[in-house]
Amino acid sequence: MTYFRENIEKAVGYTPGFQPKEADVTKLNTNENPYPPSPKVLEAIKSIKPEKLRKYPDPLADEFRKAAADFLNLSPDYIMCCNGGDDLLKIALQSFCDPKRPLAYPTPTYSLYPVLAQIQSCETIEIPFDDEFNLPPKLAGTDAALTIICNPNAPTASFINPDEIASLADESNTVVLVDEAYVDFAEDNCIRLIKDFDNLIILRSMSKGYSLAGLRFGYAVAQPSLIKGLLKVKDSYNVDAVAVTAAAQALKDQKYFSQNIKKIKQQRKYLTEKLRLLNFKVPDSCANFVLAACKKQNAKQIYQKLAKQNIYVRYFDLPRLDDKLRITVGTKQQNEKLIAALNKII
Amino acid sequence: MTYFRENIEKAVGYTPGFQPKEADVTKLNTNENPYPPSPKVLEAIKSIKPEKLRKYPDPLADEFRKAAADFLNLSPDYIMCCNGGDDLLKIALQSFCDPKRPLAYPTPTYSLYPVLAQIQSCETIEIPFDDEFNLPPKLAGTDAALTIICNPNAPTASFINPDEIASLADESNTVVLVDEAYVDFAEDNCIRLIKDFDNLIILRSMSKGYSLAGLRFGYAVAQPSLIKGLLKVKDSYNVDAVAVTAAAQALKDQKYFSQNIKKIKQQRKYLTEKLRLLNFKVPDSCANFVLAACKKQNAKQIYQKLAKQNIYVRYFDLPRLDDKLRITVGTKQQNEKLIAALNKII
Repeated sequence: MTYFRENIEKAVGYTPGFQPKEADVTKLNTNENPYPPSPKVLEAIKSIKPEKLRKYPDPLADEFRKAAADFLNLSPDYIMCCNGGDDLLKIALQSFCDPKRPLAYPTPTYSLYPVLAQIQSCETIEIPFDDEFNLPPKLAGTDAALTIICNPNAPTASFINPDEIASLADESNTVVLVDEAYVDFAEDNCIRLIKDFDNLIILRSMSKGYSLAGLRFGYAVAQPSLIKGLLKVKDSYNVDAVAVTAAAQALKDQKYFSQNIKKIKQQRKYLTEKLRLLNFKVPDSCANFVLAACKKQNAKQIYQKLAKQNIYVRYFDLPRLDDKLRITVGTKQQNEKLIAALNKII
Repeated sequence: MTYFRENIEKAVGYTPGFQPKEADVTKLNTNENPYPPSPKVLEAIKSIKPEKLRKYPDPLADEFRKAAADFLNLSPDYIMCCNGGDDLLKIALQSFCDPKRPLAYPTPTYSLYPVLAQIQSCETIEIPFDDEFNLPPKLAGTDAALTIICNPNAPTASFINPDEIASLADESNTVVLVDEAYVDFAEDNCIRLIKDFDNLIILRSMSKGYSLAGLRFGYAVAQPSLIKGLLKVKDSYNVDAVAVTAAAQALKDQKYFSQNIKKIKQQRKYLTEKLRLLNFKVPDSCANFVLAACKKQNAKQIYQKLAKQNIYVRYFDLPRLDDKLRITVGTKQQNEKLIAALNKII
């Protein structure tokens, strides 16, 4: 017998990308930023007072909310802080979805969405992207209670114009959540839509652009009416005192952030060009990774051969993805090492 | 119109204890430990490497799991780490409860349980404690999918003998979760039952006994078959890299911990005796707070008069609690200040 609910018993759960414990690896498999966080983050962490650890943190994390509000030119009541972007995704499903209220999203996309739907016992409406990864027009016509658009999308690195997302929000009677975890590497974003739509939630993450994956910090941007409801569902103390102050310092250091993003975009260009020369089909990327299709060789075999040399990229054994490799943009040295290894394999 | 599910729309949400932002307050309202965490925690936080922040944390937080396994003389697969004890409570409700699978608990108890049930759309079966706060025999006969026993109980500070909880687990076909958030201040605990029952989960928190409320760290102890299912429901990266290493160091420093607990127990004795002299009815406490019943005076008025002097205790405007004050055991100085203020009020 099992003590678990049937849907949990059946579930496989989410498989996070492999985290090798050796130091001597070229880790291009989980879309981490290859550069360290702002020195101001380290300073903030090192100057933490025992008093901050002893007491419960601020439930609303106003230090970060104010920093985000300043950054986005909104008021703090448009912001809700989360224990990583995944925390917000779970909160959104608990807020809007249940067995009678489905979740919709285009595919292929972030593989956590169906896992969260299974936990929440809600149906999923999966609408395939076309080959250019345009927004599927059918998404506006579903009876979903929540529609998630990952933009830039993982693992395709493609980007949908905010005007198209505005049309979707306008045509939908339901909530549209734009997962902007990778938006720091794109040329545009959806923040300018937030005052026009009371059914729009934008997810932001400090993991990628701000090099803080280890700290677990993300946030929601939405009109105060939506934020108020989401706050009822989140844990009271979901973000810790160290993370709040560190994330706020990271967001405030826009100079460091911009330099970091510039370097990654340069390396993305290098990686894309070199992979194309190696006969991979690589669409232009709007994220900190590229999706490289193998025209002749077997993607899984290349992935395995790289892993044997301690070079890790991500391979998905899924329809439309099993001929491709998702490769995180690394440092110049890491990218050169990958290209050299691929040169030998191919 | 609302975009939210009906149960979320109706929900009020959990009200955390008031967190005054002024420094000059006597804060005895949220059961924080009055002493700072181990100096080894601060050392661990200060020596965190940028690399730990940049990369995703270990999904299983093995550094802490090993420390907890050593401490409890179990293997690490008996442990699951959580973003505070509340994270585990939410995971447990998502794992076991739904509209057809109720949650049971004795009352009065931790006011978060019904809030989480409302989010999960499950019924609650509330069985009142008798006046001595013994385990209600009826709890074993419910059709709940999950039964939670807060032990020591909040806000009554009472303790149920582990043998009685063993009987409950034995008679139940369902999961029994013992919320031991306050167990560090009691003389006994339920860990010795864990190998006997495949339906038992013990919740532990680093917030109270280890002075780490600001860090958000708790853990589950259960047989590996249960841990395996719970892991499917938890966020992959629910605990951050800083918290994992800091919490592990706190748990390893048992010498500091024991001294801290000893001081709190001494102060609890002092506070209990002084309150009794002031004509409060105060049962012996097994936690880091006392529940003081006002025999003649109005509890709410005393609470308000104390707040005017920047002395904060907790008042619950609820049946069986509205004649009582829940007072956290503070430092010697804080407790003396409270008693002096009460002397004047009464």
